[in-house]
Amino acid sequence: MGKQKIILDKLARIFYIRNLLLRQALAECLGTLILVMFGCGAVAQLVLSGGSHGMFLTVNFAFGFAATLGILVCGQVSGGHLNPAVTFALCILGRDPWRKFPVFFFFQTLGAFLGSGIIFGMYFDALWDFGQGKLIVVGQNATAGIFATYPSKHLTLVNGFFDQMIGTAALIVCILAIVDPYNNPIPRGLEAFTVGFVVLVIGLSMGFNSGYAVNPARDLGPRLFTALAGWGTEVFTAKSCWFYVPVIAPLLGAFIGVLVYQLMVGYHVEGEVRDKAELEEESVKLSDVSTKEAD
Amino acid sequence: MGKQKIILDKLARIFYIRNLLLRQALAECLGTLILVMFGCGAVAQLVLSGGSHGMFLTVNFAFGFAATLGILVCGQVSGGHLNPAVTFALCILGRDPWRKFPVFFFFQTLGAFLGSGIIFGMYFDALWDFGQGKLIVVGQNATAGIFATYPSKHLTLVNGFFDQMIGTAALIVCILAIVDPYNNPIPRGLEAFTVGFVVLVIGLSMGFNSGYAVNPARDLGPRLFTALAGWGTEVFTAKSCWFYVPVIAPLLGAFIGVLVYQLMVGYHVEGEVRDKAELEEESVKLSDVSTKEAD
Amino acid sequence: MGKQKIILDKLARIFYIRNLLLRQALAECLGTLILVMFGCGAVAQLVLSGGSHGMFLTVNFAFGFAATLGILVCGQVSGGHLNPAVTFALCILGRDPWRKFPVFFFFQTLGAFLGSGIIFGMYFDALWDFGQGKLIVVGQNATAGIFATYPSKHLTLVNGFFDQMIGTAALIVCILAIVDPYNNPIPRGLEAFTVGFVVLVIGLSMGFNSGYAVNPARDLGPRLFTALAGWGTEVFTAKSCWFYVPVIAPLLGAFIGVLVYQLMVGYHVEGEVRDKAELEEESVKLSDVSTKEAD
Amino acid sequence: MGKQKIILDKLARIFYIRNLLLRQALAECLGTLILVMFGCGAVAQLVLSGGSHGMFLTVNFAFGFAATLGILVCGQVSGGHLNPAVTFALCILGRDPWRKFPVFFFFQTLGAFLGSGIIFGMYFDALWDFGQGKLIVVGQNATAGIFATYPSKHLTLVNGFFDQMIGTAALIVCILAIVDPYNNPIPRGLEAFTVGFVVLVIGLSMGFNSGYAVNPARDLGPRLFTALAGWGTEVFTAKSCWFYVPVIAPLLGAFIGVLVYQLMVGYHVEGEVRDKAELEEESVKLSDVSTKEAD
Repeated sequence: MGKQKIILDKLARIFYIRNLLLRQALAECLGTLILVMFGCGAVAQLVLSGGSHGMFLTVNFAFGFAATLGILVCGQVSGGHLNPAVTFALCILGRDPWRKFPVFFFFQTLGAFLGSGIIFGMYFDALWDFGQGKLIVVGQNATAGIFATYPSKHLTLVNGFFDQMIGTAALIVCILAIVDPYNNPIPRGLEAFTVGFVVLVIGLSMGFNSGYAVNPARDLGPRLFTALAGWGTEVFTAKSCWFYVPVIAPLLGAFIGVLVYQLMVGYHVEGEVRDKAELEEESVKLSDVSTKEAD
Repeated sequence: MGKQKIILDKLARIFYIRNLLLRQALAECLGTLILVMFGCGAVAQLVLSGGSHGMFLTVNFAFGFAATLGILVCGQVSGGHLNPAVTFALCILGRDPWRKFPVFFFFQTLGAFLGSGIIFGMYFDALWDFGQGKLIVVGQNATAGIFATYPSKHLTLVNGFFDQMIGTAALIVCILAIVDPYNNPIPRGLEAFTVGFVVLVIGLSMGFNSGYAVNPARDLGPRLFTALAGWGTEVFTAKSCWFYVPVIAPLLGAFIGVLVYQLMVGYHVEGEVRDKAELEEESVKLSDVSTKEAD
Repeated sequence: MGKQKIILDKLARIFYIRNLLLRQALAECLGTLILVMFGCGAVAQLVLSGGSHGMFLTVNFAFGFAATLGILVCGQVSGGHLNPAVTFALCILGRDPWRKFPVFFFFQTLGAFLGSGIIFGMYFDALWDFGQGKLIVVGQNATAGIFATYPSKHLTLVNGFFDQMIGTAALIVCILAIVDPYNNPIPRGLEAFTVGFVVLVIGLSMGFNSGYAVNPARDLGPRLFTALAGWGTEVFTAKSCWFYVPVIAPLLGAFIGVLVYQLMVGYHVEGEVRDKAELEEESVKLSDVSTKEAD
Repeated sequence: MGKQKIILDKLARIFYIRNLLLRQALAECLGTLILVMFGCGAVAQLVLSGGSHGMFLTVNFAFGFAATLGILVCGQVSGGHLNPAVTFALCILGRDPWRKFPVFFFFQTLGAFLGSGIIFGMYFDALWDFGQGKLIVVGQNATAGIFATYPSKHLTLVNGFFDQMIGTAALIVCILAIVDPYNNPIPRGLEAFTVGFVVLVIGLSMGFNSGYAVNPARDLGPRLFTALAGWGTEVFTAKSCWFYVPVIAPLLGAFIGVLVYQLMVGYHVEGEVRDKAELEEESVKLSDVSTKEAD
């Protein structure tokens, strides 16, 4: 095993990237790849099997636990956002520098693009079998909905925008509670699981309107892939250009989420900690004074 | 980032509420909002999609994990009751002062009211589509059951009262075991998850009669919202004024739950700890005596 | 709150039971009550709703998580067996004294009896509605299967016996791994959750033949209840006196489980620990010798 | 209890195996037995009950949590691979010696063989009832698919090979993240649960093509069993000799998984740790120098 060890060690030194931001971006890319591969894979399994190998609940489980796994794979390196809306919220709060936002956005979208590509390859035969030789965007035997989200018939654009905004706000409120340094409700190391539950619950209760993208990268990456892979530009123009809603609305939702969490819980747990610190400081000063007087 | 930090710090100091009870009430309000938003959202998804995007199991999962998330968001500040019956049980046991009860009850109901309002907005188009332009309380295409609970056809009022009482008693027995300071069965930080499992199991096994409200705030808040939002006062008069059952019976159930847990487990784990403490005290005294004699 | 504290303290001292075995038996009784109440409640919900509010999976979840909750409630006091087969296995291994076995068996069966009584009360209206005024043991609209288990049509008695034996053996192998003091695979406090997963998995894969009782108390208690509550003695004579299979076979299965686990894993983890301890002892002796020689 | 203790102690010394590799192989055998027993048991329950006692989701849950339980039972002794592809990946990375690979492969396959034998016995009556006296490999009332995997109609061999390769690569990426000593995302003791979630998610999203074996032992062992138990050699020749795909492709997939994880995350977390260690060494040397100079 001596020789193997030496080779492995050499490889480790050759492929080590020294730029921190690039390392983090790469990790985000892999994490989002995992999220989309498992998530969209479950949609593919549901759609292509005609319901025999899945249902909406299995898609919810898959996206939830895929988020968990994605975060576990890359969290140590990049924090495991997997979602530009999350990066955006953390930038607003000053916990991440703003220059991370465009870099992460790009690499998260790239990861989502690659993840949907893998699912395309995996279910290649099944896709052609299901569409009877065609890749259809909307209507009977449509398969574009496996990758990106499309609104239900009953949904107006205004309601759809509100849906994505509220969904993302709910996501952000829960995530902020989980990662708030002043509000530590769970043991270290379980954040990824808890975020998975958040994504699961959002799918269980907010998935009927348009499939709960609540993540610009998760929707845009696969949509780009489908545009290139054979579904064509209709993926962007369909449903009155729906495509921009799950890109814009989640960012607005992230802002609302930050606002709600901070006003109703965040500022108060922070304030309590500050109060205690100030009290202690004062008592230290007082005891200082008394000690001096005692002198 | 310097300027952003300063602005954020200022905001934190401006919006910090100094009154502890108000801070706690606000946190309970957000927690219950999350519980009802996700829980009733899942019912909405089930009903409005006609079963294609949900089933009773998804509602059970949603209420269970929504309870977990609600507790995680507010637990650090207010204890995460989300339910007047829980507050009531803790007041009976002297672990919370009685004046918390009415305040928490009001803010929990307010949170439930707001949570159902968000779901109303999110599924606005789907609600009108499903009811074909009407908001119906009971019968074909009824949508009031998305928000508040209504009894099944087979259920008499007496059995319904018993159902809500037993359901809440079961909830309280399990919660008391989880938070009992003398009976520490789970690692710190996992209480929220365990309570979520309790709510899930109650839904799996006690949900058929009338939909397991087991929580006055979760039922009254959304019912008030539906009364104001267009379903009218029928939400209160329907099914022989069912509305008061999930408000009164859970409080009685909480009392029974406290009784059962304390008599069968609680007093005994407490007694064991007391016995040990007394034994140690005595041995300390004895060794004290012997030390003195030795002098 | 002063007065309340005093009253509560008095109550605590009055109702404290000084006999340890009785305290443990009472705790087992409550734990098994919870297991059966939630578990059989889920079967009731499935059967009585005609599948609209449940499916076999929800029963599996309910029994699994009900086991978790039952153990959490009583584990600190009694170890949380909830199952005579588990008590039997621990007695075989000498980890519990044999006199516990009959006492626990009785109180576990009593708890199961009471738990099924609660479900009978909770679904009283639904039971009469479903059976159209009759309580039927076998056939169309039968409701006895809500409480105790009955074999499927395809099952012979021999295969049924094997089924219960293997199911219990699998349960015991997993539980022994979880609680083995030499094989500590999970963090303290998570045993209850893991046992819940074991029960869940057994239900997912071994539930088709006769409903995976794998627990004499869980089957006998509710069967006694149904015999007294109106289903009559047919609950014992039905299906060629099936009733004794889930009482006898699990005890045999427990023995097999102990054997398999100990031979394939248990003795080896124990032996490794013993080897290390002996090695250390020897090195202590050696250093002792060398120290003396150095003197 | 004195006598019992002595007997038990004697047994422990008699049956203790002193060869470490054999002990580990035996543990792997039991672990894989549990994985296949519960996993294939769930498929049996789904197929034989005609869907009344299971669905594809229950199979996913069963395989996921069965992996968790298998790892919990044997992990302390052997690491809990349960899968030659996992052993292969760890050998590539130099974390396990290569001689383990053939030994583990054999005993894992043996465990899978025995596990499917137990399920054959448990559902003996049901198997004959379902097949109306015949054990059929492919077509109406086929039961061979309960034990080993067979491709769907739409699947070509090339796509099937890609499916197994990608599925295993995804498994390995996630497992490497979980057990990477430089990337510790979860608390110790929760690895088994997390791997269970990985297996669950793979089933939810990659199970439609051919049933996600992603494990040569899990597929080959039961296939051998069915060949011997009465299904005949058709289990090897069916579907253009599909049998070798889930044996070969997962090993290739393991290699790809190692590559992807190491290049995108593994080398970088390792590098970071190395960088820190080197920095500290240098600062130690520097302070050494300055201390000497100070002398």
